[in-house]
Amino acid sequence: MVAKAHGTAVLVGQLEVGGRAAGLEHPVMLSGRPTTVQCVPDTPPPARQAVGIDVVAVGSAIVDVLAETEDQVLGRLGLVKGTMALVDSASADRLYRAMGPAVEASGGSAANTVAGVASLGGSAAFIGRVRDDQLGAVFAHDLRAAGVRFTTPAATSGPATARCLIFVTPDGERTMNTHLGAAACLEPEDIDAGLIADSRLVYLEGYLWDPPQAKQALRRTVALARETGAEVALTLSDPFCVERHREEFLELIDSGVGVLFANAVELTSLFQVGGLDQALGLVSSRCSVAAVTRGPAGSVVVAGDQVLAVDAHPVERVVDTTGAGDLYAAGFLLGLARGVALERCAQLGGLAAAEVIGHLGARPLVPLEALAAEAGLLEPTAGGRRAAGRGP
Amino acid sequence: MVAKAHGTAVLVGQLEVGGRAAGLEHPVMLSGRPTTVQCVPDTPPPARQAVGIDVVAVGSAIVDVLAETEDQVLGRLGLVKGTMALVDSASADRLYRAMGPAVEASGGSAANTVAGVASLGGSAAFIGRVRDDQLGAVFAHDLRAAGVRFTTPAATSGPATARCLIFVTPDGERTMNTHLGAAACLEPEDIDAGLIADSRLVYLEGYLWDPPQAKQALRRTVALARETGAEVALTLSDPFCVERHREEFLELIDSGVGVLFANAVELTSLFQVGGLDQALGLVSSRCSVAAVTRGPAGSVVVAGDQVLAVDAHPVERVVDTTGAGDLYAAGFLLGLARGVALERCAQLGGLAAAEVIGHLGARPLVPLEALAAEAGLLEPTAGGRRAAGRGP
Repeated sequence: MVAKAHGTAVLVGQLEVGGRAAGLEHPVMLSGRPTTVQCVPDTPPPARQAVGIDVVAVGSAIVDVLAETEDQVLGRLGLVKGTMALVDSASADRLYRAMGPAVEASGGSAANTVAGVASLGGSAAFIGRVRDDQLGAVFAHDLRAAGVRFTTPAATSGPATARCLIFVTPDGERTMNTHLGAAACLEPEDIDAGLIADSRLVYLEGYLWDPPQAKQALRRTVALARETGAEVALTLSDPFCVERHREEFLELIDSGVGVLFANAVELTSLFQVGGLDQALGLVSSRCSVAAVTRGPAGSVVVAGDQVLAVDAHPVERVVDTTGAGDLYAAGFLLGLARGVALERCAQLGGLAAAEVIGHLGARPLVPLEALAAEAGLLEPTAGGRRAAGRGP
Repeated sequence: MVAKAHGTAVLVGQLEVGGRAAGLEHPVMLSGRPTTVQCVPDTPPPARQAVGIDVVAVGSAIVDVLAETEDQVLGRLGLVKGTMALVDSASADRLYRAMGPAVEASGGSAANTVAGVASLGGSAAFIGRVRDDQLGAVFAHDLRAAGVRFTTPAATSGPATARCLIFVTPDGERTMNTHLGAAACLEPEDIDAGLIADSRLVYLEGYLWDPPQAKQALRRTVALARETGAEVALTLSDPFCVERHREEFLELIDSGVGVLFANAVELTSLFQVGGLDQALGLVSSRCSVAAVTRGPAGSVVVAGDQVLAVDAHPVERVVDTTGAGDLYAAGFLLGLARGVALERCAQLGGLAAAEVIGHLGARPLVPLEALAAEAGLLEPTAGGRRAAGRGP
């Protein structure tokens, strides 16, 4: 039931992202006939003032520690390749001691996504908690230097800024071990209602569902978004994360998530079904749009009864897949904020993901806006919003 | 007067690195006639026990903060391209705010050198001061993970671990701004006499001459090396560093430095002469060996009345010259410790430098020992000393 789309003429689905005032309209063309699909029929967005921020993300504020590692080391350390595990301070220290020489680079799934949105020329903000320590300063610097607004105050006591120990194997696959530290201390009070009100899209990181008070912060975010008419997007983050929180994720989605990001394993796990087609059928009744990544096979977008397969962007060499899903979400969300067709949203996601897997680290090294313009996927912003700098 | 050497048959100079017990002999071949040159005639090394460490370095313990930067940004920030400037905490903060998204990687000139020695299969140790903070932990981890012994206790009070803000321009040139922090707090008491006694070569970083108590630590190192018969090597580090300390550097050299590393600008500045040939003539009467780097033109080695030019190792693309001199010293020192001919020492230096300028960051990403073996420059160590891991 997955229809393969070629070329640029196929426009499917519609997403109302509170865009009336912002001039966002998604014309829908089904079989050549213009029509309209109301994607969030039971929650019509209130008339909104013009909003200034394309995407605000709520997520874990994490500094990545990346080291290239041989496969056999993973086995010796008891790590499951390709997954993310939460580890306590003692385990993090043990794994760090076993790790080779590393580099540090700011990370965090949703933070990577908004860095990508900014690099694509969008306006972006981030809500997440660091400690007032050296790695916290590194995280804040890198995000702001990428052009993302970040004003959540650093914790002045409690655990240190979160670290993610990332073992990158020669095939480019990454195995992550996260010590959440201060990131787990995000509180409902940290969710800046003004920021939510000023944003088109609110993006939630599933990983944050693990720490109880951060979960409350996510719930408050959804409530605020409903009040102000911002569209809510959620990433399921990780198959193990879905295992841990399946029922609550389904409740969260039903409470007002319009856009869902997942990979095939996460989506089939969410619905406890064996096949992707079955999962796609189930997700379409719960979200306006679901964007499902399939690695080298590209992505599938579901909106109403439309299912659209989009090819992956070509990649010369996969160096490190860290951040692939995060950057796919960045491109997709920026596309939604700009009101482009869903196919192009998925292509923008693919382009952003392709850049980030071509080098070590989870954030773009070149301005994605220029890449997207070259590829004919995006009109450059007039006057030029600040895009992410040429990070190393 | 620089003679160009081709092929592998030209062996010049001899260096006694306290190697009698360790079996180090440098056969010297002048015009096809074997001979012997006593390089440190006024300080014959005492008979020594077999030593366990090839190179111990005394230097600044620094974490690099690297960001790619356009040339015009340097001008706007008032930075002199290609140099190292010492900056106070306020200037470091100002420059960091102006910097794009960055990555952190352990650095420090002499620390990079011993990381390179370990990567070449040598045994290496480092003496330098960090603070007990997050970046201090990163520095210690990366050095130990590279196989370098590092036991200097972290400071429990005082300034934070040193940072070097490195702006890398598109031509691969780097402009460095160092806030010395805890690295400046190295004291004479930190110089582990046992470590010096157990080492063939002691390598001193000229940068450390700036902080007064660290200077005393270097002087104590030279005194200990004289007592135990270890050979002392010094790098002049930077032209501005030479400007600041010209007279004291000359005194230090005369007090017992056998091996001098410099680039052409530093060496001519040291002797306040206009041309490299003149400087080479002057250095030969003060040191057993001087190795002078000339960027893409390779290096010149002076030993007694011998002057030997060695080509640079080919490089596909220069990405970031940070660490080029440090790694040249690594290869050269490892060669000296192994007792290979000076030409090969310079070739090993060139090979190590070529690897490190091909990527961002100042430490090798692949085991240099394997590269050197492939290039026919080094026999791999039997049984395998621990080489640096595959860092990212």
